[in-house]
Amino acid sequence: MKKRVKPGTFVEIKTRKQKYKGILIESYEKGVLLLKLKSGYNIGIKEKDVLAIKEIKKPKEKEIKIRLKQNPKLPNISVIITGGTISSQVDYKTGGVKPLTKPEQLFALSPKLLEVVNIKKIERPFQIFSEDMTVKEWQKLAGITAKLLNEKDNQGIIITHGTDTLHYTSAALAFMLKDLNKPVCLTYSQRSIDRGSSDATLNLQCSGYAALSNIAEVMIVGHATSSDNFCQAIRGTKARKMHTSRRDTFKSINEWPLAKIYQDGKIQILNKNYNKRSNNQVNEDTAFENKTALIKFYPGASSEILNFLTDKKYKGIVIEGTGFGHTSKEWIPAIKRAIQQGIIVAIAAQTLYGRLDPHVYSRARELQKLGVIYCEDMLPETAYIKLGWILGHTQNKKEVKHLMQTNIAGEINKKLSERDFLY
Amino acid sequence: MKKRVKPGTFVEIKTRKQKYKGILIESYEKGVLLLKLKSGYNIGIKEKDVLAIKEIKKPKEKEIKIRLKQNPKLPNISVIITGGTISSQVDYKTGGVKPLTKPEQLFALSPKLLEVVNIKKIERPFQIFSEDMTVKEWQKLAGITAKLLNEKDNQGIIITHGTDTLHYTSAALAFMLKDLNKPVCLTYSQRSIDRGSSDATLNLQCSGYAALSNIAEVMIVGHATSSDNFCQAIRGTKARKMHTSRRDTFKSINEWPLAKIYQDGKIQILNKNYNKRSNNQVNEDTAFENKTALIKFYPGASSEILNFLTDKKYKGIVIEGTGFGHTSKEWIPAIKRAIQQGIIVAIAAQTLYGRLDPHVYSRARELQKLGVIYCEDMLPETAYIKLGWILGHTQNKKEVKHLMQTNIAGEINKKLSERDFLY
Repeated sequence: MKKRVKPGTFVEIKTRKQKYKGILIESYEKGVLLLKLKSGYNIGIKEKDVLAIKEIKKPKEKEIKIRLKQNPKLPNISVIITGGTISSQVDYKTGGVKPLTKPEQLFALSPKLLEVVNIKKIERPFQIFSEDMTVKEWQKLAGITAKLLNEKDNQGIIITHGTDTLHYTSAALAFMLKDLNKPVCLTYSQRSIDRGSSDATLNLQCSGYAALSNIAEVMIVGHATSSDNFCQAIRGTKARKMHTSRRDTFKSINEWPLAKIYQDGKIQILNKNYNKRSNNQVNEDTAFENKTALIKFYPGASSEILNFLTDKKYKGIVIEGTGFGHTSKEWIPAIKRAIQQGIIVAIAAQTLYGRLDPHVYSRARELQKLGVIYCEDMLPETAYIKLGWILGHTQNKKEVKHLMQTNIAGEINKKLSERDFLY
Repeated sequence: MKKRVKPGTFVEIKTRKQKYKGILIESYEKGVLLLKLKSGYNIGIKEKDVLAIKEIKKPKEKEIKIRLKQNPKLPNISVIITGGTISSQVDYKTGGVKPLTKPEQLFALSPKLLEVVNIKKIERPFQIFSEDMTVKEWQKLAGITAKLLNEKDNQGIIITHGTDTLHYTSAALAFMLKDLNKPVCLTYSQRSIDRGSSDATLNLQCSGYAALSNIAEVMIVGHATSSDNFCQAIRGTKARKMHTSRRDTFKSINEWPLAKIYQDGKIQILNKNYNKRSNNQVNEDTAFENKTALIKFYPGASSEILNFLTDKKYKGIVIEGTGFGHTSKEWIPAIKRAIQQGIIVAIAAQTLYGRLDPHVYSRARELQKLGVIYCEDMLPETAYIKLGWILGHTQNKKEVKHLMQTNIAGEINKKLSERDFLY
């Protein structure tokens, strides 16, 4: 009975209880058959329960065809492809995804994009899943982006990127691109583009509109809801991935999204406080202190981690504190020691939403007296990137403190309102 | 001109530009007067800008009077007071808050509660701000709670607690109270009870109703919206503080709240999947492995922190991974080393919302092969507490893995739905 069927084959599996139809994928567990169902989900079936396997269709990978022609009548943009699901296709060997062979394939399923813009250039500086992004890749990306933005006949940039760390990259680019002149739209998909249900189509289309808009910000453009109806543009320093799998995973934290973007090209501005398109020359400004860390305080957390970072001569540490920006009293001596050794210690809110306030409770007053910097309403991830970037430029304590508490790239919102919560 | 005015005095301060009225509080900054405005916010005014200070009212702290009488006609509950804003009052010396003198004062501003329940006992095992909670306090609290729950004439428990780490305590109690028989309602306030606008009143009242209900869960009871209209009860293992200052700061993550609780005592069940009131004997089961840590992966994070924890002979580590549960490839050798040394490594979602899936991307498949445990839809904070608690009972790898992936106290929701996001 146990005949070997090639992964990628569309099969029907019969067990005593049920029949299953799907594509057989390579199983990582012994004695278990793995089936990719039509829904996209994988299920495991114990081999010993299998009564019969019927081969319905031999394996054949979908070939994505695309001819990317120049259309000089349309406004130019450029695209940078960095990897991630949006530039991947299903790999039936593993049931996972693998990179596209040619970058142009990316646009095969978003013909609408090519009716709106002319893609002048495609750059693919590296092809990695976004969990492998590091400061080095941010710097490389900032360099290429700045160069493309300074080309006169280029209206804007689309960067395709994995979702895992997209909001870290967007924050990094926001600080690293000085005097930004045109839109930089980072986009993604949660399902690969060779799947009918991919969210890449709408995200690319809306990124096209955003790239031609007046919003000269580094922003994440993607689904605003779990339906395929419209997108939103979120400021790069205020964005966070908030769900493992939903299309509308990116949310704007502590301010409204910049805009809603519809399929017909309509852009509805939600937040007027954005940088306008200009004739500036963009400057890449990518210095970053790698000895910067982000750690979390929680009950039971030993301050020995903080002491370890001090011993390792870190230059900056952002602590995700509780409430208005607190740690336990057990952490006080370690924080004091770090600051005495010249390390910049900043605190951001692990609640994510809301603003810190060092004046309400005694613990925060104590921390502030020690020299801890309070990061306003900044996301912890953004605070980490901002601190690393500032320390790349100056290590003067007073200057660092001043810059951390000064709005540079939209990371501080002085006017939080009721509607900024869980929007 | 610079006459000294006593902190606590209600004053009018005149500067060239404006007049300010408020209570003068002790300033921590030289040359700056600090004023608590009627809105509750503090503002700083430079002494050199001050033209005149008028004393309007001498300092007098509000004395909170309460007579806590037994009313044998009402059902009994007991209250445990642990500290936090809900058992504090404004301290005009510092502009912050300080603990109440007598525990009974807590109920002065929630007379409604005393019309619904008879408070049989008040326990105050310690009085600390919640950022100072540790495993030891959780264990003490579990012990007292179990004892009170096993008193036959006691219908339920209210625990008042600071907000900073309330969701950590609720998760800890959920694991530490075995065979729970009655409601355990943790409640809080974001503004101290001697302020007219305090949220303590409604939260205490709704906790009273919840303590008499059929929901035998450890739950957080508090404001459901930013208005004073109704509360919600959130399962202790699914709750998270999501805003630094809002009344409705606690949100139910990856499942709906258990119930809405109205001022008239009506309880509307939103999630039928809860543990019912019973005649069980509750057992405290508080063993916890202190050598458990929670760390966050982010781009640029060095794996040396992981190696440090391995060197320090930690027994369990929860990593807040990106996306479906990933780290960079740079972390792989350190994770491998930790596991080889017998450390349990688990991964939870830094997105907070959604479920992990180790089958979609190659990095997660690799991590799972190494022996990393995937924490389903558990909050990272809950996963940390669960791992510490399990390791307090067994350090057998197979058993730990099995228990981590088995639902024990409502921490795993097998049926995530559309409506569970940002509710």
